[in-house]
Amino acid sequence: MKCLIIAAGKGSRLWPKGESKPLVPILGVPLIERVIRSAMRAEIDDFCVVTGYKGDGVRHFLDGLARRCGIGITHVINDAWDQDNGLSVLKARQHLNGGPFLLLMGDHLFDPAILHALARKSLGEGEVTLAVDSDTVNPLIDMDDVTRVKSENGKVRDIGKGLRAFNGFDTGMFLCTPGLLEALERSTAKHGDSSLTGGVRCLAAEGKVNVFDIRGRFWLDVDDPKNLERAEGELLGQMRDKPNDGPVSRYINRPVSLRISRRLTRLPVTPDQISLVSFLCSLIAAGLFALGGYPALLAGGILAQFASILDGCDGEVARLKYCESDFGGWFDAVLDRYADAFLLFGLTWHLLEAGTTVLVIFTGFMAIIGSFMLSYTADKYDSLMRERIIAGGKAGLRMGRDVRVFLIFLGAATNLVLPVLALIAVVMNFETLRRIMVARDGQH
Amino acid sequence: MKCLIIAAGKGSRLWPKGESKPLVPILGVPLIERVIRSAMRAEIDDFCVVTGYKGDGVRHFLDGLARRCGIGITHVINDAWDQDNGLSVLKARQHLNGGPFLLLMGDHLFDPAILHALARKSLGEGEVTLAVDSDTVNPLIDMDDVTRVKSENGKVRDIGKGLRAFNGFDTGMFLCTPGLLEALERSTAKHGDSSLTGGVRCLAAEGKVNVFDIRGRFWLDVDDPKNLERAEGELLGQMRDKPNDGPVSRYINRPVSLRISRRLTRLPVTPDQISLVSFLCSLIAAGLFALGGYPALLAGGILAQFASILDGCDGEVARLKYCESDFGGWFDAVLDRYADAFLLFGLTWHLLEAGTTVLVIFTGFMAIIGSFMLSYTADKYDSLMRERIIAGGKAGLRMGRDVRVFLIFLGAATNLVLPVLALIAVVMNFETLRRIMVARDGQH
Repeated sequence: MKCLIIAAGKGSRLWPKGESKPLVPILGVPLIERVIRSAMRAEIDDFCVVTGYKGDGVRHFLDGLARRCGIGITHVINDAWDQDNGLSVLKARQHLNGGPFLLLMGDHLFDPAILHALARKSLGEGEVTLAVDSDTVNPLIDMDDVTRVKSENGKVRDIGKGLRAFNGFDTGMFLCTPGLLEALERSTAKHGDSSLTGGVRCLAAEGKVNVFDIRGRFWLDVDDPKNLERAEGELLGQMRDKPNDGPVSRYINRPVSLRISRRLTRLPVTPDQISLVSFLCSLIAAGLFALGGYPALLAGGILAQFASILDGCDGEVARLKYCESDFGGWFDAVLDRYADAFLLFGLTWHLLEAGTTVLVIFTGFMAIIGSFMLSYTADKYDSLMRERIIAGGKAGLRMGRDVRVFLIFLGAATNLVLPVLALIAVVMNFETLRRIMVARDGQH
Repeated sequence: MKCLIIAAGKGSRLWPKGESKPLVPILGVPLIERVIRSAMRAEIDDFCVVTGYKGDGVRHFLDGLARRCGIGITHVINDAWDQDNGLSVLKARQHLNGGPFLLLMGDHLFDPAILHALARKSLGEGEVTLAVDSDTVNPLIDMDDVTRVKSENGKVRDIGKGLRAFNGFDTGMFLCTPGLLEALERSTAKHGDSSLTGGVRCLAAEGKVNVFDIRGRFWLDVDDPKNLERAEGELLGQMRDKPNDGPVSRYINRPVSLRISRRLTRLPVTPDQISLVSFLCSLIAAGLFALGGYPALLAGGILAQFASILDGCDGEVARLKYCESDFGGWFDAVLDRYADAFLLFGLTWHLLEAGTTVLVIFTGFMAIIGSFMLSYTADKYDSLMRERIIAGGKAGLRMGRDVRVFLIFLGAATNLVLPVLALIAVVMNFETLRRIMVARDGQH
């Protein structure tokens, strides 16, 4: 299905962030790219974008994006960008081939699941379906600016910014028939109103605008710096619910790593580069451990914990900037295994400085092998746990790298290296043993 | 589709191996179970088995098998098991529901791919399709006993043991219409011949027996001890073409492990138990290394290499006895990682006995971590290599555990422990680095 995106307006309220609104970066990714990427997640790959104000730059950017993503983007130029936005829709008529189409605002972010469901709704002759948010206390909504909707029995009765009586908000996401174009023309002729809202109001009067309630799902109109901040906060917040996160990750590392990632998205660094920097920090931390003496030990511990936090940023930045890759995740995991081994070896070395004992060498070895085994068994265990959760059970806390490095940090900070090495050795190997048992019991 | 298996005969030529022919074990699995398991691999799950001589025991076994495998097995009893085998087919008439059915011999082993293709052939009214082996110099065929086939233009012209002019062999695998039953009755009435061959000959005279040539694919009539040996050799040989085998595995370990597996299949040991014994051998080998002194070192090296060979048997026995499991393969891999780490730690310890040096500890650590990383990156690398092979490229030799343990064995045998540890450290870590490069270049 064709997806029409209107992005011709001036967007002057966002000028503090950039003069061309569609290209204003939200966590490093231009607003219009976020809209298109979200639509792509909803399995849309054929776009028609109406540009106007500062359109050359936007069109150039979109051409590059189409190439990079392997999607189709047709340009429609609306030189009357300072007039009502319904004109942008009318100008695209020839590209819509007379069939149903999706209509999005170039400055509205949204959960792809909304569009995925909206695109699958069925429409009667000349009808339009509007995605409406019935959550009238949605904190992301700017009450002064939002377009209000009054609906009854699944039909829009009235729509407009100034509505006194309303029970929902226009999210700017439509599934349309060409009936919308005719309604826009009627609204222009009758009322001199060529705004999209005007056209929809005309159709609503005929009972031809259906409501698709998206209550509880994310959408946001990014039209001023305050909302841009909200959008960034919301997108960062979505990074929190990674199901594999262990307790240290969830409660200590993520809150910090997200702050760092917010800044990193604005820099031209790749996730792989972040993985490498985190790895180098771990190597230096291991070197500090091996140096001997409490100050170096403490510094190493802090650096190791920092590396562990930074280790969350590569994935966050990749997801926030749509550059996740299979290789990136794997590369990060491989570097993590080396980092873990070096950190534990550094701690062992620290103890050996004070005299070699059988106990130290064996404990260090068992800690290294236990840590490795825990990572080696993680994939299998995680997939078992996923099945269990799907079957309605509980997964319990996940013991992973976050816990391991945090223990290393605590051991270094408290100067209790041998006890912590022993604890890691025991916990990691027992957890591996437990996983073997769980996997054995869980086999079909 | 229903699959009829006739297994009523006395099979006296196999008596040295067991009095009930269907239950004679081939590498630990009863002949009739191998026939049924092969059919199951061809997606057949509805069986009708005709039993006769010593039928009680066979039926009891089949009931258990049906439960274990979740398949349907209907019994047909043929008390006239000492007469022509066509009677077994006629007795099953009421269970065949008048539709097409597959017909197999209870003592013929075969490649499931043959049956998979045969079951998908289309048949004309009253016709039969016979799987024929046109390879007249197939070394697995007992020329004195095989039923010969003379075919022309895809039709069987004549069939019988004594045929002088022939161009193929009856493999005992048929796709039938009920026309076969009528032909058997005609053959009995006209010629007093109620053998299956007699019935097929009648149909062939009417041009109603199609040839399905299976040249080059495995099938074998197990009717005497010599052919049973051949069957076992053939099944063991099929274990050789594991695509992931490294060079040491392929040329040194497999030939030995297959001989051990041949014996192990006859014992009531599970693959997991074999994995555990192999692991314990490695642990003892590591202990011998740590003991110090060349004799213990040599003994440890030999034991480690033996454990590596035994490590191939768990998978072989699992595949030969149809008890492969996801858990089993994973459990083996987890134990292997522990075994590798302990072996390398044992070697490091051996060197530490002669005095601790920075070099020894660091080399041992790098060997352990390198070995781990190689295993950790194996899945990713293997799947990349599979894609590459599918795309027409070459994979090159695979560097894996077989090479690692063989190097350990060589190091112990030659008393060159430090050089070998250093070699493992360098080779394994460089190979890991190379895999990272390959994976990076191979990303889509």
